[in-house]
Amino acid sequence: MRLSRVNHLGVIVDDMDAAIAGFRDRLGLELAKTEVYADILDIAFLPCGDTQVELICPREDDDPAAQYLREHGPGIQHVAFEVEDLEAALAELGERGVETLGEAPRPGADDTIIAFLDPRSFGGILVELCQPRPARPEE
Amino acid sequence: MRLSRVNHLGVIVDDMDAAIAGFRDRLGLELAKTEVYADILDIAFLPCGDTQVELICPREDDDPAAQYLREHGPGIQHVAFEVEDLEAALAELGERGVETLGEAPRPGADDTIIAFLDPRSFGGILVELCQPRPARPEE
Repeated sequence: MRLSRVNHLGVIVDDMDAAIAGFRDRLGLELAKTEVYADILDIAFLPCGDTQVELICPREDDDPAAQYLREHGPGIQHVAFEVEDLEAALAELGERGVETLGEAPRPGADDTIIAFLDPRSFGGILVELCQPRPARPEE
Repeated sequence: MRLSRVNHLGVIVDDMDAAIAGFRDRLGLELAKTEVYADILDIAFLPCGDTQVELICPREDDDPAAQYLREHGPGIQHVAFEVEDLEAALAELGERGVETLGEAPRPGADDTIIAFLDPRSFGGILVELCQPRPARPEE
């Protein structure tokens, strides 16, 4: 397993416009992409170097991101490392006793396949693994 | 002002050995550097792509990192963007109404000059700007 880069930082906010005003208008990052994920999250990607800030704003009160906001306020919730083969990486981590959280692997934002790893294996930090999906020319 | 890359993610932990076991031994990142910062923080840097995970573990109870742990538990406290000229960047941000937190600029870990920016300008997210210091051949 090789982590090729930090694919993104998962940043949970309660006001997407205010966050974009900060990261784009004040810091000068490019707003490269926005999407609505699974009808429950507003997402915005702002690349910097070989990684990107992923702004995440929940649309529903019962989403885990909304729960994070209630417990912590806005913050950087997770770091997502990119791998070439997520299934192989999860198998390798399983041998090292690392468990996944929720359904894994599952579809992520920005056309990826993702898995969240149990924070207890990382000193309490939420780590995501993330594999880009190949482009689908027919869609 | 141009942010050239994410210099690091500032990750606050309460057990450095457990965090290193996760990021190095389980995920396979390289532990590139450790240092004690200003006698108050244990720091470890683990590069990935063009950025790095900065693990931060407070040695004193009255440090802001210790306060973060008490309020949030372990987590990703800040994102540090790299700039070529920190003074110029702060002047530009000042014109946009962005204030700094604490002494700024001031020395950071890993031989940098840093400034923390007021989270109220970034949707509640703690942003650091970071300028690498040129190598000092006489020291």
